Amino acid sequence: MLEEKGEVVVSSAQLAYACGVNAAQVRKDLAYFGEFGIRGVGYYIKDLYDDIKNILGLNREWRMAIIGIGNLGASLLLYKDFLKKNYKIVAAFDIDPSGVVGRVSEKMGKPVEILHPDRLKDVAKERKIDIAIITTPASEAQKVADKIVEANIKGILNFTPVQIKVPKGFVVKNVYFTNVLDNVAYLLHLKRR
Amino acid sequence: MLEEKGEVVVSSAQLAYACGVNAAQVRKDLAYFGEFGIRGVGYYIKDLYDDIKNILGLNREWRMAIIGIGNLGASLLLYKDFLKKNYKIVAAFDIDPSGVVGRVSEKMGKPVEILHPDRLKDVAKERKIDIAIITTPASEAQKVADKIVEANIKGILNFTPVQIKVPKGFVVKNVYFTNVLDNVAYLLHLKRR
Repeated sequence: MLEEKGEVVVSSAQLAYACGVNAAQVRKDLAYFGEFGIRGVGYYIKDLYDDIKNILGLNREWRMAIIGIGNLGASLLLYKDFLKKNYKIVAAFDIDPSGVVGRVSEKMGKPVEILHPDRLKDVAKERKIDIAIITTPASEAQKVADKIVEANIKGILNFTPVQIKVPKGFVVKNVYFTNVLDNVAYLLHLKRR
Repeated sequence: MLEEKGEVVVSSAQLAYACGVNAAQVRKDLAYFGEFGIRGVGYYIKDLYDDIKNILGLNREWRMAIIGIGNLGASLLLYKDFLKKNYKIVAAFDIDPSGVVGRVSEKMGKPVEILHPDRLKDVAKERKIDIAIITTPASEAQKVADKIVEANIKGILNFTPVQIKVPKGFVVKNVYFTNVLDNVAYLLHLKRR
């Protein structure tokens, strides 16, 4: 954001404020990876941004498939921040090629191609898919995960409340809405006790 | 799930497998909160479930508002697991009362009432809202957060990529899709290095 605003240098205090942590923590965390800042000046925004991208593996494009195009899948198809950060959705899968697709196509200003999940393996190879996002109903999650493993897509982002099982070597991260809510509820509960 | 299946007792090994951790960790974590298990037998499922709910503050209903009824808001309105866990959506807000609402109403089998965000404060009091969920465009996030604070809703779940600022005493949790993806990408990046 600072870069977009045309800023050149940022202090650890500014970064800390933006992240909701303290400045010493920012300096300490960055120092882990080498010499970044200039004492008394701060960090050159462009250099720092590029360095962090290199460290995190975000200096390349990550190619993604979304499996399950209901409301949630549709909202991810339309999510603008993915592209800003080099996450590119290159395929969308659903057993039902109709559903919310009409409206998504309209919003995107172009028809969205919906493929049958049985084609995952072929398409993964053709389109070099790195990450698969599961937004199917919970009942389908493990079945879809098995297809993802078969297609050898190594990164999985699971939005269903099912704990999917995959072999070693696959990376799975879960976004469980109720778990995050449990966290909010627990903290509110502690306050009220 | 075990309770639904009619099971009575669960071992720490079973719990560990389901959670993807090890059995010793399960026993140790639970022991923090008192005596639960019976050596050589395991845990009585019903008792353990109730005890955990009490510890986490999940033995009561949490009343929620969703602000921003686009695709993501709609998918949360339709999310079945909330009710299972006592999270009840009691109000939906949007500046545009049309949008995806028709389709959501159809899926829910009843008309969905969409309120203007300016009514948040009154409605929060009337309907005893505990948690507000922000699913607006990023550009509206802080404005909405300010309204939530004004309405004195203490729990906030923020789905926008904006780091919202709220006074002390409010609980904010963020679900940033790109952050979770960054995590997947980083782990894939480490594997390939």
